[in-house]
Amino acid sequence: MSNFDYQQIDDVIHSRIRTAVMAVLVSVEEAEFNFIKEKVNATDGNLSVHIKKLEDAGYLTVKKNFVDRKPVTRYKLTSKGYKAFEKYIANLESIIKGK
Amino acid sequence: MSNFDYQQIDDVIHSRIRTAVMAVLVSVEEAEFNFIKEKVNATDGNLSVHIKKLEDAGYLTVKKNFVDRKPVTRYKLTSKGYKAFEKYIANLESIIKGK
Repeated sequence: MSNFDYQQIDDVIHSRIRTAVMAVLVSVEEAEFNFIKEKVNATDGNLSVHIKKLEDAGYLTVKKNFVDRKPVTRYKLTSKGYKAFEKYIANLESIIKGK
Repeated sequence: MSNFDYQQIDDVIHSRIRTAVMAVLVSVEEAEFNFIKEKVNATDGNLSVHIKKLEDAGYLTVKKNFVDRKPVTRYKLTSKGYKAFEKYIANLESIIKGK
């Protein structure tokens, strides 16, 4: 197997917004929608679509509750998400270094 | 500007096959189509499309000539391509590290 094999790169993560969202979530315990949105500089609709894709892959969980009667949505990486991101970085590093 | 800003990631490079092709080309002086194809594990059609996109961005040049009457196509990164790949890696590293 070649070390440049593109199929080794996790397609769920290797999209610009999703890469950025995963990077935000590994850096914090959990994050609200607006926090992520500001960090990755995405629009609401675009971010929602990409978060859904990460959720469908089992890489993050969504918690909805109310704070002062306002709905708050929080996102958190799952252990599967952590592992996938670690593997993604390791694969990308090995591809970039050509090892 | 947030360091997680996804728009900092070069969209031309941040596609699985194109990331792999760029990684192959930075590791060699120049490469033939079949060499790249084997390295990145892509199909002919798929690889052609992605190479064209990199060519259109000015990231690689194509040289066609004949060796023993057989057509040989060689690809080489341009200095623009080198710089773009270096910047891509640097951006991705800073996003991943959240710095």
